[in-house]
Amino acid sequence: MIVEMISVGTELLLGNIVNTNARYLSEKCAMLGLNVYYQTTVGDNRERMTEVIRTALGRADLVILNGGLGPTEDDITKDVCAEVMGRSLKEDPGVRAHLEEWYRLRKKKDVPESNWRQALVPEGAVIFENSNGTAPGLAIEQDGKTAVLLPGPPNELYPMVEQHFCPYIQKRQSGVIRSQMVKICGYGESKVEEMLLDLIDSQTNPTLATYAKTREVHLRVTARAATDEEAKKLLKPVIKEIRRRFGAAVYTACEEESLEDVAIRLLKKHDLTVTTAESCTGGLLAARLVNVPGASEVFREGFITYSNKAKRKLLDVSKGTLRKYGAVSKQTAKEMATGGVFAADADVCVAVTGIAGPDGGTDEKPVGLVYIACYLKDEVRVEEHVFKGNRQKIREQTVVQALDLLRRCILESADGK
Amino acid sequence: MIVEMISVGTELLLGNIVNTNARYLSEKCAMLGLNVYYQTTVGDNRERMTEVIRTALGRADLVILNGGLGPTEDDITKDVCAEVMGRSLKEDPGVRAHLEEWYRLRKKKDVPESNWRQALVPEGAVIFENSNGTAPGLAIEQDGKTAVLLPGPPNELYPMVEQHFCPYIQKRQSGVIRSQMVKICGYGESKVEEMLLDLIDSQTNPTLATYAKTREVHLRVTARAATDEEAKKLLKPVIKEIRRRFGAAVYTACEEESLEDVAIRLLKKHDLTVTTAESCTGGLLAARLVNVPGASEVFREGFITYSNKAKRKLLDVSKGTLRKYGAVSKQTAKEMATGGVFAADADVCVAVTGIAGPDGGTDEKPVGLVYIACYLKDEVRVEEHVFKGNRQKIREQTVVQALDLLRRCILESADGK
Repeated sequence: MIVEMISVGTELLLGNIVNTNARYLSEKCAMLGLNVYYQTTVGDNRERMTEVIRTALGRADLVILNGGLGPTEDDITKDVCAEVMGRSLKEDPGVRAHLEEWYRLRKKKDVPESNWRQALVPEGAVIFENSNGTAPGLAIEQDGKTAVLLPGPPNELYPMVEQHFCPYIQKRQSGVIRSQMVKICGYGESKVEEMLLDLIDSQTNPTLATYAKTREVHLRVTARAATDEEAKKLLKPVIKEIRRRFGAAVYTACEEESLEDVAIRLLKKHDLTVTTAESCTGGLLAARLVNVPGASEVFREGFITYSNKAKRKLLDVSKGTLRKYGAVSKQTAKEMATGGVFAADADVCVAVTGIAGPDGGTDEKPVGLVYIACYLKDEVRVEEHVFKGNRQKIREQTVVQALDLLRRCILESADGK
Repeated sequence: MIVEMISVGTELLLGNIVNTNARYLSEKCAMLGLNVYYQTTVGDNRERMTEVIRTALGRADLVILNGGLGPTEDDITKDVCAEVMGRSLKEDPGVRAHLEEWYRLRKKKDVPESNWRQALVPEGAVIFENSNGTAPGLAIEQDGKTAVLLPGPPNELYPMVEQHFCPYIQKRQSGVIRSQMVKICGYGESKVEEMLLDLIDSQTNPTLATYAKTREVHLRVTARAATDEEAKKLLKPVIKEIRRRFGAAVYTACEEESLEDVAIRLLKKHDLTVTTAESCTGGLLAARLVNVPGASEVFREGFITYSNKAKRKLLDVSKGTLRKYGAVSKQTAKEMATGGVFAADADVCVAVTGIAGPDGGTDEKPVGLVYIACYLKDEVRVEEHVFKGNRQKIREQTVVQALDLLRRCILESADGK
């Protein structure tokens, strides 16, 4: 099934906001086995929108319109789409009731006159209830083509896609599509593709798609089958093979789990508390750990020791080490990690020191040079990295690598027991 | 001049990456006074790209193609565009020399056979040198229409746009377009628009555009005139009027300056050192300060005190305060800020404590309740906020508000001198 996505919004054309909805919807389409051939963005302009919808219905089987369903005069997506498809609008009693209920419960007032427009739907349209807003989603089917209209605000769009759009598409497909995400840390995208070249080249079912993130690669494995059971059976050996090739670099095979989720999960599992001692990342590493709800069970305090004096005072790094090897050195990283464990009375400490630039680099110690140390059970492991990119990028890569080092240290320590 | 932007890349259609280039280019077009009417994304497919370019040249004056200029077989943007516009490709000696130089200097090897394709340019095209890569930018003019081809990687795109694309467009326009960004913190977008309604409604020259960020609104003021001097003269009274209406909430009128840049600049100016004491933000606030190169002059250390014990141990928050008012309270925030100043021997301390959720909220202290305190010159100012959104959003808003509180405290303290 060929898909064209149409995003509606002058704010997109002005560059006021990034079109994250298009990315989200495209990924969902890929997961559903749909082929997105075109993405188009158009403003809140009747003439141009008419033309764009007409073109899309001419070249795609499924046209997904996103945005422009609000209650204001500018919001014309529904009107224009209904007109192009030759449908008249009529009030839907279900949507009307939802609107009344919405205002009664949340706004404690009657529906404003302008909002009644949202109860009008194209005749014969399938209606997707909006659990987080007033504009319903709509699907209009005609002559083998389908137009789907979805609201713009992400907090309305995402649940509607999960609850209504995906099941609506799945019901119309023969069989089932099931996908699973395998997340890998520490390999670049081209290396991952190289290591999976035979699988990627021969892929028909399941298929493999790679998503490059900062120092991570996410692999989506998607299978098509008659039943969910069969699809699962198709996925299993491929995921097993990926795990075999990448070993411990696969940190999860769960869509929702992030690297910090895994780190916190492992800390809880092994009953360990953690602290952080950060120089160049200046708190970013701790902030990633605290992203995880319930992190307080294993993380109680962290240190940002940007100056040498702070490293000495808070982490007891020795003056001699700083003088002899410098703040950005294996030795300092090691002493920071050890000092952190004692200062916080924690089981584990991850320490980071490096040169994030743009200044401060030398031939011997270039911008991007970073040392990451992890103290666990009387042992300190230190890694040296030279990251590329600007200050921001170097710090982001450092944090990912630090979380991964923490994860690997816990795993290996547990294995060694 | 009507613009259509065409992004080329299958990875965009699969939802692997967000199209940040489209946002960047659209904003640049807005700054140049160009009207982007359509944004289209198409994959690396000859047939569909041909159709998309043809349609674009039919409905727009300027078509900006982005991506697909690389050396691989997949990269067909230049070939397809030249074909649609009836131009043959021929090798350009300048581009050839650039390629040779590039490989000699950076890769220390000869140009690979496949890369010579990049020296081919459509006959009669204007060439934009690529200072960060091998693919040149191109402009093809024909029958009053122009196609501009720009490389996809942001580190190649951005400098090329600044150095070549903008001057190329400006040279073809009568007169000059000049814009200035005014950044406001602490007002929502709708409030800003309300307060500027008369200016927005009557705008012709200069024009005003609002860009909503987390707890910030950026206002782009754009003027058109015969000369740069005249454009500046048109901008001046509007910017003065915005400053009059928003007062100290305007934190900068400089495109490149961020809130943390301003905070660090003010700290340096007033010869103050700063520290941070964070609970729910878990290091994010310090990380924002450390974003600024040279932050080490004013920021030496920071504390992440997630647990009550850490608040007591590192910041000397009293047991009684924690017991009586709780960790999320005005009193605790105040003691954290005071304790931070003494612990770090700094002049200023910003402290943050709150409930970021999803759990931990009560009727009395709901999720989103945050206290931010700033200690400066024996005075502590505390603000109470209730932020909306998920854990991530609450923490982001907290950090922006904390940076702004720091900024305002320094300004007011300096005023009071």
